Amino acid sequence: MSNFECPLPHQVTDNVLLAHGEGSGMTRQMIRERILPAFSNPVLEQLEDAARFTAGDFSLVMTTDSYVVSPLFFPGGDIGSLAVYGTVNDLLVSGGEPVCLTLGMILEEGLPFEILDQILASAQRAAKKCGVMIIAGDTKVVPRGDCDQLYLNTSGVGLALPERKWSSRAIQPGDELIVTGQIAQHGVAILTCREQLDFSPAPQSDSRCVREEIEALTANQANVRAIRDATRGGIAAVLQEWAEASGCTLTIEAQQIPVSREVSAVCELLGLDPVHIASEGTLMIAVASGTSASIVNSLHAAGFPYAARVGQARARDLFPVTRINLMGLEQPLEEPLGAPLPRIC
Amino acid sequence: MSNFECPLPHQVTDNVLLAHGEGSGMTRQMIRERILPAFSNPVLEQLEDAARFTAGDFSLVMTTDSYVVSPLFFPGGDIGSLAVYGTVNDLLVSGGEPVCLTLGMILEEGLPFEILDQILASAQRAAKKCGVMIIAGDTKVVPRGDCDQLYLNTSGVGLALPERKWSSRAIQPGDELIVTGQIAQHGVAILTCREQLDFSPAPQSDSRCVREEIEALTANQANVRAIRDATRGGIAAVLQEWAEASGCTLTIEAQQIPVSREVSAVCELLGLDPVHIASEGTLMIAVASGTSASIVNSLHAAGFPYAARVGQARARDLFPVTRINLMGLEQPLEEPLGAPLPRIC
Repeated sequence: MSNFECPLPHQVTDNVLLAHGEGSGMTRQMIRERILPAFSNPVLEQLEDAARFTAGDFSLVMTTDSYVVSPLFFPGGDIGSLAVYGTVNDLLVSGGEPVCLTLGMILEEGLPFEILDQILASAQRAAKKCGVMIIAGDTKVVPRGDCDQLYLNTSGVGLALPERKWSSRAIQPGDELIVTGQIAQHGVAILTCREQLDFSPAPQSDSRCVREEIEALTANQANVRAIRDATRGGIAAVLQEWAEASGCTLTIEAQQIPVSREVSAVCELLGLDPVHIASEGTLMIAVASGTSASIVNSLHAAGFPYAARVGQARARDLFPVTRINLMGLEQPLEEPLGAPLPRIC
Repeated sequence: MSNFECPLPHQVTDNVLLAHGEGSGMTRQMIRERILPAFSNPVLEQLEDAARFTAGDFSLVMTTDSYVVSPLFFPGGDIGSLAVYGTVNDLLVSGGEPVCLTLGMILEEGLPFEILDQILASAQRAAKKCGVMIIAGDTKVVPRGDCDQLYLNTSGVGLALPERKWSSRAIQPGDELIVTGQIAQHGVAILTCREQLDFSPAPQSDSRCVREEIEALTANQANVRAIRDATRGGIAAVLQEWAEASGCTLTIEAQQIPVSREVSAVCELLGLDPVHIASEGTLMIAVASGTSASIVNSLHAAGFPYAARVGQARARDLFPVTRINLMGLEQPLEEPLGAPLPRIC
């Protein structure tokens, strides 16, 4: 598909590294080289956030996510609501109407019930907000030291809406790229909280349900090519995946990307690039050429003041993803190989 | 519903204990007191192995299971095939035709890829045998020490077959109880392998897909009330749940229960009662009064020589579950409060 990829050094490791869980280059490599060949089937190979499948006469979407975030409670959310919103958002961005979730829990022996109860209550509040039911669950307890407090898995099923058949493979040269809000809020909130960095105001996670953004697109949904929540790996990882799936070169303009002052400050101090840092309630949207202005306007009107056109697709040339920096210079946007932020979701 | 329950001592703990994950009394107590109130909804409250729900006009079943078994490979199986069979079996015993699964993985940093690849290949072989596709996945990596090698979650969706609307609430006085094979094979296999007990022949897990047993019931499916795979907590836990759901007293006869010589030997030596030990491919079936002989015959004909009628339901009297021991004496079958076998599945 592509004639040139940002070069990844050959991985000589025979073991799983933290970087394999970061959502960027090494994660995609592991999926491509190990997981897809193991399960080779056309549904899995779509590689979207949720899989479309048919059961009898029914067209459904389904997705699964495990959550290992540390700490369990962070500014703007907790593992319970994060798990529900994350899975509901994956169904929404895949053109589904979420119907129900399951909740699998792995608990560490000794976990205080007070913490479990708070997390369950938070998950239920989030499910109510999203209009989904948690219909099945499972609980395992492992001895002290065999997990860190509590890990969750949420899997979700939704109806596949035929009018929302979005796919990253549909992205074409000329398409425009939009983000719906300030990026990197979630990752920076986790990082500052975990490392007890004393910023004021403390950055807040944007963990939330993205239904309103998706609804705001309704009038324009035929012009939408693909939507993705920019979680692990940030918007850079979404762009890499989309470039791979579509065969286009995707270019973003640094100047257009909405970043809050708090997040800018933290990233500058720690030498992080916000395009690599996770959001939880902020979307990247690819739309047909010439339609971004009207779509950005609908997003503003729906209460998303930071929504902005941030870039464009073109026929593939040298690099899959590039960024025009603040001095107007276009440069390849490479992916971090290390693992700056484990256990972020 | 019941006027007398096997007494559980009041739990004074404020923390999660290993016993909360054992599938018996304390697990049910945690579900009843914490999980159901948190998510209160009619689908979850069915408390079957899989939840029946409708999505648009579609009637589906859905289930989720996390797997933390130790060791990852054991006589007769491994965590990959166990996870696939376990979830497929939950769909089958709930009257569903399994369609697809998701696979969520939590990997410990440093896990050799060789192990991961073996487990993925085993999961795929199991999925093929069951006729289901793994259509979506998720991978998280946690730092060394934050989990023990590898945990899996499989969630599954199936079509709810209207002619298989089995439910533990349908069990009535007079109904008969059948088991389809020798019990406790899985738990004893894990235990002997983990503790490196040198039995010859080594007990083998019965981890497998139960589709053939379910198919063998087809001619009699209208006489089936409920089916359950006797996993965590063994057949005793199934009986307790069914007694609670149906309001009946369920009685089993020790003499009728099929147990292999190896399992008997291990249990006798270690002071374990096989009725509390997990099976993975052995079912408990409740059938209408007078139909057990014909159903046991179909199971024998289908290649399940150990299938046997093991007991009966009656109107609730003193105890929810009793066992007629080898001397013909009926005694309450109590549940273990401790946690004899953590990380068995």
